[in-house]
Amino acid sequence: MTSEHNPAVVESPPRRILLGPGPSMVHPRVYEAISRPLVGHLDPQFLELMTQMQQRLRDVFCTENQLTIAVSGTGSAGMEAAFVNLVEPGDEVLVCVNGVFGNRMSDIVGRIGGTLHRIDRPWGEVFDPQEVEEALDRSPEIRIVAIVHAETSTGACQPLVEIGRICRERDCLLVVDAVTSLAGIELRVDDWLIDVCYSATQKCLSCPPGLAPLTFGPRAVERLARRRTKVISWYLDLAMIQEYWTERQRTYHHTAPISMNYALHEALALVLEEGLKPRYERHRLHSRALIAGLEELGFEPAAQEGHRLPVLNAVWVPDGIDEAQVRRRLLDHYSIEIGGGLGELAGKVWRVGLMGESASRDNVHALLTSLGELLTSDSDAARATAALDAARAVYVS
Amino acid sequence: MTSEHNPAVVESPPRRILLGPGPSMVHPRVYEAISRPLVGHLDPQFLELMTQMQQRLRDVFCTENQLTIAVSGTGSAGMEAAFVNLVEPGDEVLVCVNGVFGNRMSDIVGRIGGTLHRIDRPWGEVFDPQEVEEALDRSPEIRIVAIVHAETSTGACQPLVEIGRICRERDCLLVVDAVTSLAGIELRVDDWLIDVCYSATQKCLSCPPGLAPLTFGPRAVERLARRRTKVISWYLDLAMIQEYWTERQRTYHHTAPISMNYALHEALALVLEEGLKPRYERHRLHSRALIAGLEELGFEPAAQEGHRLPVLNAVWVPDGIDEAQVRRRLLDHYSIEIGGGLGELAGKVWRVGLMGESASRDNVHALLTSLGELLTSDSDAARATAALDAARAVYVS
Repeated sequence: MTSEHNPAVVESPPRRILLGPGPSMVHPRVYEAISRPLVGHLDPQFLELMTQMQQRLRDVFCTENQLTIAVSGTGSAGMEAAFVNLVEPGDEVLVCVNGVFGNRMSDIVGRIGGTLHRIDRPWGEVFDPQEVEEALDRSPEIRIVAIVHAETSTGACQPLVEIGRICRERDCLLVVDAVTSLAGIELRVDDWLIDVCYSATQKCLSCPPGLAPLTFGPRAVERLARRRTKVISWYLDLAMIQEYWTERQRTYHHTAPISMNYALHEALALVLEEGLKPRYERHRLHSRALIAGLEELGFEPAAQEGHRLPVLNAVWVPDGIDEAQVRRRLLDHYSIEIGGGLGELAGKVWRVGLMGESASRDNVHALLTSLGELLTSDSDAARATAALDAARAVYVS
Repeated sequence: MTSEHNPAVVESPPRRILLGPGPSMVHPRVYEAISRPLVGHLDPQFLELMTQMQQRLRDVFCTENQLTIAVSGTGSAGMEAAFVNLVEPGDEVLVCVNGVFGNRMSDIVGRIGGTLHRIDRPWGEVFDPQEVEEALDRSPEIRIVAIVHAETSTGACQPLVEIGRICRERDCLLVVDAVTSLAGIELRVDDWLIDVCYSATQKCLSCPPGLAPLTFGPRAVERLARRRTKVISWYLDLAMIQEYWTERQRTYHHTAPISMNYALHEALALVLEEGLKPRYERHRLHSRALIAGLEELGFEPAAQEGHRLPVLNAVWVPDGIDEAQVRRRLLDHYSIEIGGGLGELAGKVWRVGLMGESASRDNVHALLTSLGELLTSDSDAARATAALDAARAVYVS
């Protein structure tokens, strides 16, 4: 056990095992890419990299959408870009809220003057497609439906296929927050009839934070073209941004974050080299092992059964544990980061991310071993052993 | 002469000499910093780095403003952050326009519902403080004045001291775009009575693009507190963002772009190690040498005399030169990037950036030598020699 926190030497960040809600760990090839020599944002070499990267993004989103880009901001900028471009003042929008990020979508819709229709589920639960259908029946003037695929605040995974069909039948656009799901669990933008989808780089793509992958399907692009008002954000105005991202145009809008784009380009290569299906399977495997071990230590999954995210494992913290103190010890003494609860789950749950590079057997073992040391006394050391055994049993099965 | 452009191998970007309007060249220490191992955005080590970085930003802005941060987007996000936080629908704003970036400010003010008052100068010229004074006399309801310090599209440098005094006397807030000036030419936020100032990382700070330094003075912060409406942008809402940047709060807003913050933290260290005054002087020296050489080759400065930026040298392209072709040859055969004209100056001027790491004798010589080869024929090779001699004369004087 060594203390890794030394505020005096911020130039030498500690090597963390990142098992929080993001950022996740980063492959050496991505670190190499981010430090490649800069070129200009209109350099033919960089434009070629953008073109390649767009195709890689399409492959990871499972879409053929032409307008598939990386927004120059973090995941929340991707969320904001989706809404400011689609929603004009007075437009009716249905937002499904079962956690922090559904709340954030509602907040944004309100700020830009949309008329908010909101349905709520208890945090940790998911929506039945019928609830969406009924909401649209009650308010047939709604033309946009927004929902979170993987709720990072609760660990719940929202099924989307039926909702896509319902939206298409009623001529609504479906906006999906895939910040925590993209490249970690199955997500099929075209097959599932998703019109707009955004994500972030620092979750299952295992790239540093700073860009937001975003895709707009043909129906959403058509809506852009029919806008009556200017997009309220200059920085996120896709009408201008897409002129920069379109081959044979490449009109300057803002200076692209070159180094971050280098990193994302490489992170996407790693995802596609592994293959989406093996990558999803890897996330499921390590999550099963982790949960098996955590249950031995007294932690129960917090999200609705059957709808638990393998990439973001939310578990109830048992009574009697000072959760903030244990998390701080994990960080200081074992250099392992896990996440606390957000919003109404603060102090009640832990959120253990197993995203991208972070999803490995070594990391599952490291966390279970450390927690075993921190949470069990000499008298019940058997529990610590049992936790590791339970994880091991998953791996050998 | 080697061609450095090979679209098939985007993973190996060419080593460019970056003499365009940004990005500028990056010091090896900054490349090292950007590839440091990630930690979480709430990691004590990262929070400590933010605190240090804020102080470095204050030192470079010459301010004691508490609310001094790096916005998680490029320079244009900094511009948008300034306006969306200050301006509420119906607020009266004076924007001074003498180039692309003044135009952009006007555009943003309009999008967010501000009432735009606009004064214009021909591109390349600067405003007389009296013009600002008269505009405020005509419309005394104006409470916000916005102006560009270093107009990247024209190479003009706007004097600010008098304008600061005029704004303060009339109880107006002064917003200054310092995207291209910060750390390259003198800028004293507090002494010059600037209330809000934003910049970008990829100009004279010589950091990759992706963050926007931003400072809000006490009068601007007071205005935030008195807002009647929510800020129209969730992503750029300083009321929430400052809770993350304030010590003893550190409330999660969005995931900070960790790697970019590492880079900026290091780039600022390099600026402060050099010292602001020597750094300004270095920019002036290399600009004088460059202009002396370019004049021998027939290029005349485009911006108003006495108000020319050393960091962004705009020059008229002489008749008979296919400017786009020559720029492309510079890039392909000499791996040197310079900038073309923007907006109404497209095709008419070149913009040669000497910013931060790019401002060096080697780079001035490389550009003059290359242009000498590209622009002069055997019969007038003496002009190429004269250009180099003129630059050399500046350095030895």
